[in-house]
Amino acid sequence: MEYDFKNAPDRSHTDSVKWDVKPGELPMWIADMDFKTAPEIIKAMKEKVSLGAFGYEWPQADYFNAVADWYEIEHGYRPQTNWMIFTTGVVPAISSIVRRVSHIGDNVLVQEPVYNIFYNSILNNGRHVLSSNLVFDGEHYSIDWTDLEEKLADPLTTLMIFCNPHNPIGKVWTKAEVQKIAQLCQKHHVVLLLDEIHGDLVRKGQGYTPAFSIEAKSNVISLVSPSKTFNVAALHAAYEEGHDWLKKLKQQLNENFDYVSQFIQENVPEVKVVSGDATYLMWINVQKVTDNSADFAAFLRKETGLIISAGSVYRGNGQDFIRINLACPLAMVKDGMKRLVEGIRKYSK
Amino acid sequence: MEYDFKNAPDRSHTDSVKWDVKPGELPMWIADMDFKTAPEIIKAMKEKVSLGAFGYEWPQADYFNAVADWYEIEHGYRPQTNWMIFTTGVVPAISSIVRRVSHIGDNVLVQEPVYNIFYNSILNNGRHVLSSNLVFDGEHYSIDWTDLEEKLADPLTTLMIFCNPHNPIGKVWTKAEVQKIAQLCQKHHVVLLLDEIHGDLVRKGQGYTPAFSIEAKSNVISLVSPSKTFNVAALHAAYEEGHDWLKKLKQQLNENFDYVSQFIQENVPEVKVVSGDATYLMWINVQKVTDNSADFAAFLRKETGLIISAGSVYRGNGQDFIRINLACPLAMVKDGMKRLVEGIRKYSK
Repeated sequence: MEYDFKNAPDRSHTDSVKWDVKPGELPMWIADMDFKTAPEIIKAMKEKVSLGAFGYEWPQADYFNAVADWYEIEHGYRPQTNWMIFTTGVVPAISSIVRRVSHIGDNVLVQEPVYNIFYNSILNNGRHVLSSNLVFDGEHYSIDWTDLEEKLADPLTTLMIFCNPHNPIGKVWTKAEVQKIAQLCQKHHVVLLLDEIHGDLVRKGQGYTPAFSIEAKSNVISLVSPSKTFNVAALHAAYEEGHDWLKKLKQQLNENFDYVSQFIQENVPEVKVVSGDATYLMWINVQKVTDNSADFAAFLRKETGLIISAGSVYRGNGQDFIRINLACPLAMVKDGMKRLVEGIRKYSK
Repeated sequence: MEYDFKNAPDRSHTDSVKWDVKPGELPMWIADMDFKTAPEIIKAMKEKVSLGAFGYEWPQADYFNAVADWYEIEHGYRPQTNWMIFTTGVVPAISSIVRRVSHIGDNVLVQEPVYNIFYNSILNNGRHVLSSNLVFDGEHYSIDWTDLEEKLADPLTTLMIFCNPHNPIGKVWTKAEVQKIAQLCQKHHVVLLLDEIHGDLVRKGQGYTPAFSIEAKSNVISLVSPSKTFNVAALHAAYEEGHDWLKKLKQQLNENFDYVSQFIQENVPEVKVVSGDATYLMWINVQKVTDNSADFAAFLRKETGLIISAGSVYRGNGQDFIRINLACPLAMVKDGMKRLVEGIRKYSK
C-alpha cells in the first residue's frame, strides 16, 4: 500500500502541544510525529466512533493475542499473554511501579542523559535519582560497568529504569548488554524496569532485544506501547494491521536521517550527529557551538523559530547536545536544517 | 433536534465491560448508558479522527471556557477558569488526591453506602476508611450530623469524600447540607473532596449545588466530568454542544424511572424504590425479599440473565438494596422488569 509521508496534518488551532507555537515557528522537539497515522488505524477508529458508545472497556484475549503476534512478527519472539497487563500509558505505569516496588528515600538508578520524565516519576514520589552516567568518548556512548554495579549494589538502590532503545541518544543496546544488566540487577536484588517504547522504531541494524525475550527475567518489568510507533493509543488495530505502514515509515525516517547527516556534514561540520539506529530522534553534539544547550535552544527559537529539545533536560552530558525530532515530511526537515544553520551562524558570532 | 433513545448500540463482541455477558443476559449494573452519545459529539470525534494525528495534547483556554459556560448555563454558577485543572479521570484524581492531602494511616471519611471504588482509592494507598453511615428511616436517607462531626474531629481524619448527587442512592444534597459539610470540614481541618460526576444528571427538582459555588470553599476540591453525562470523554465538544441532547436524555430517563416505579408498585409491591432525583441509577430496597443482596444478585443473573449491582458493594445498609441502571431504551427496561419479577418470584419460593 502507498502511504503519505509527504504531507503533515495541519494541527495549528488544535490542542497539540507540539503545534502550540507562534506563526512561523517550526517545532522539532517533543517525540510526536508529523505524519498521519496508518490509514488502517483511522478506519478502525472511524468504525468505533460511528458506534457512538464510549463506556467502560477492558481488553479481551484478542487484544493480548494481537500484542503477542506483533512481537513475534516484528521482533522474532512471542511473549506469553499471561505475562501482560494493560495500563493506560508508559509514564503512569512508571510512576505506579516506582511507588509499588521501592520505598520513599530509596535510590532509583538511571543512566544519564535519559528521558527527562523519568526524573519526575522518581522525585515526585519521594525517591532519589542515582545515575550511572553513560560514558561518551566523542563518538559513541557506552556503559561504565564497574560504576553501574557499585550503584546497583548500594542497599538503597531497589529499582533501575533502563531505556532501550535509548531516548535521547537513539542507541540500541545489544542482547548481551541487556542480559548483563538484568543479571546484575538480579544479583543485587534490584527490580529492572525497561522503557521499550521506541522498540518498533529501530531503523537499521540488528533490531532490539525485548527484555521479556531474555532468560533471567524474573525481576524484569518491560513497558511496551504502540504510542510512539503509530502516534496513537488505538493499540489493537495498530498491532494487527500496522506492519506495512511501519516498514514504510522506517524507510522515510532513514531518508530523513541520511539527509540531515549529510547536510550537517557539508554545511556545519563543527556539529556532529551521534544518533544511533533507533527512534526518530536525532542526538546531535553541539559542544563546538555551545556548552549551554538550553541557552542555544532558546536562541534558536527566538532567532529562527526552530524549536528543538535542549539536551540538558536529559542531564548527564546533555548540556553539549540537542535532540531533533525527524518524524516529519522531508520538506519540513529541510526547512528545519536551514534554520539550524542560520541559528548556528548567528549564535557563533 | 430529534435524538434516538429507542435503540441501543450493539456492543456485543466489543471490549465493553457491560456487554461482556452470556447470550440472553441483560446487564443493568455498571454506570454506563445504552444510548448512543450525542450526534454533536460523534461529529466532532469523526473530524478529529479524520485529521489522523493523535500526539501529545494539552487543553487550551477554549476548553476551560467551555466548562465555565456549561456550568453557567446548566447550573447557574460560573466557575473561574483559574480554579480548574485538567485530569485524566475522576477515579485517578481521587487516588492522587488521597496520596497528596493525607498520610498513610490517616482516616478518609465517607458516607456508606457509597460508590465502592472510593474504598479502593483509600485502602490501596494505605489509608483507613471511616464511615459516618447515612441514616435510613425506611423511606429516605439523611446525615447523622453528630456522628459526622465526631468523626471529622478525629485528628486522624484529614480527608472526606462526599458524593453529590449521591451514588448509589441518587439523592441530591441541598445547598444547606453542602455548605454545612464544607463548614464542618473547615472547622476540623479536613479537606473536602466532592465527586460530582452525576451533577448533570439531576432529572427532577431543584438541581444540585456545585461545591465551587458555595462560600466556604478554600478547603474544597470538586471533581466534575462529562463522562457520565454523555458516556464519553470528549469533553470539549460535549460541553459546547451537548445541552439539547442532555435535556432530552433526562426526559427519557424520567420516562424510564416512572415506568419502573409504577411497574414495581403494581407487580412486586414488597419491593420499594428509594431512588432520588439524580443519576440514572435506581436504588431499590429489597429487604422483604432478601437480607443478602449479593446472593440475590447472583441468583437473578443465573436464573433470569438480568445483571444488576448488589447494594452490598456500597457497604452501609446496602445488603438490603439493589442498584439498577436505567440508562437504556425503554424496551430494554421493560425486559429487565419482567426478569426482575420472575427472579423475585423464584427467589421467594
